Amino acid sequence: MKRGQRERILAAAAELLAERGIARIGRREVATATDLPARTVSEIGPTRSDLLRVVVESLPFPPISEALQQQAQQPSVPAMQALLTAAREVLGSPAAAWDTREIQALALARYDPALGAVVQHRLDQRRAALTEVVRQLRGSGAVDDTIDDDAAALHLLAVGLGLSVIAGASTDWNAPSGWTGLSARLLESLAAVELPTAAPAAAVSTWRARV
Amino acid sequence: MKRGQRERILAAAAELLAERGIARIGRREVATATDLPARTVSEIGPTRSDLLRVVVESLPFPPISEALQQQAQQPSVPAMQALLTAAREVLGSPAAAWDTREIQALALARYDPALGAVVQHRLDQRRAALTEVVRQLRGSGAVDDTIDDDAAALHLLAVGLGLSVIAGASTDWNAPSGWTGLSARLLESLAAVELPTAAPAAAVSTWRARV
Repeated sequence: MKRGQRERILAAAAELLAERGIARIGRREVATATDLPARTVSEIGPTRSDLLRVVVESLPFPPISEALQQQAQQPSVPAMQALLTAAREVLGSPAAAWDTREIQALALARYDPALGAVVQHRLDQRRAALTEVVRQLRGSGAVDDTIDDDAAALHLLAVGLGLSVIAGASTDWNAPSGWTGLSARLLESLAAVELPTAAPAAAVSTWRARV
Repeated sequence: MKRGQRERILAAAAELLAERGIARIGRREVATATDLPARTVSEIGPTRSDLLRVVVESLPFPPISEALQQQAQQPSVPAMQALLTAAREVLGSPAAAWDTREIQALALARYDPALGAVVQHRLDQRRAALTEVVRQLRGSGAVDDTIDDDAAALHLLAVGLGLSVIAGASTDWNAPSGWTGLSARLLESLAAVELPTAAPAAAVSTWRARV
């Protein structure tokens, strides 16, 4: 394969998968878009599932997820603030939390072990970051002993993903106005008692006050 | 189209979509499976997205969802018990809460308006049922005035869906042991005060006691 061809194929497949979805693209569509022969596209991925895999493999994490992964590695704000910010951003723009190509890959992971491995690795990274942020929250006294880090992280991951899938499939997506208050309340409920030190930053105090 | 052909095509498409996924089936595979010509399959749905649509359109709701829809129409148990039962069932078998074909349809709804309409209608039914069960919960005093019915229902819908998608894409799905306790805690947090009348049935009291 000539230099640059791989990049052209990946870019075209990424765009087609975002615009038409996997049901409507294959190596022929990618070949047409890149002006390359179908057999050259096949060297990257002979099936549409392969094309989805190579695209998702090189997909950056969305900014909301990047921010949580950075917070996990090197906390820059109180953990409660990081989670409330993420919750608000997911609600405002659920599609921004999970790329439509990653959602397609999740829906099809079970049918293709190679695709499944890529998806699993990305899920693990997101989940590990959330588990670490929950651990930070615990460090500030904001998580009761009876709450399990793993369960809380999985809950947060599931809510964000579910919301993104629902919003992406809804023509009339409107975030319920009461959602931010609910999210704050649910996060607060992780704590057994009033939070001793995890007072929110000024930026989030207005909608904490609503609950 | 001859009598019975439509049913044969639908049954074959339903099975192939569940076993191979939409990336790997089309009218040719359905034609082979049914021993009918591809053009007869095309009368039902010329594209793979059409095949997915007709299959999902006639898909029954999973038992967990049916039970919640019945609870919404005619409450047979306290609402808190209905929700905790659903939460426990989703966790034990997340794939049972959302059929893999419905998840594929959700992931591709944005690319096909006809598929999108089917998916939206089913989402609306699930969400309306959950909103009604939250309303029942409120009637028993278990939901604080500051919590919005819509937001709470969407949260419950999103958690179940997100969990099903994650579990379906995970080769090593294991429910975290702390999940049921967390779910009970989160449901309880919807109430401003101790629940006056929504005492759980004996069947769920053991894991409420864990939180």
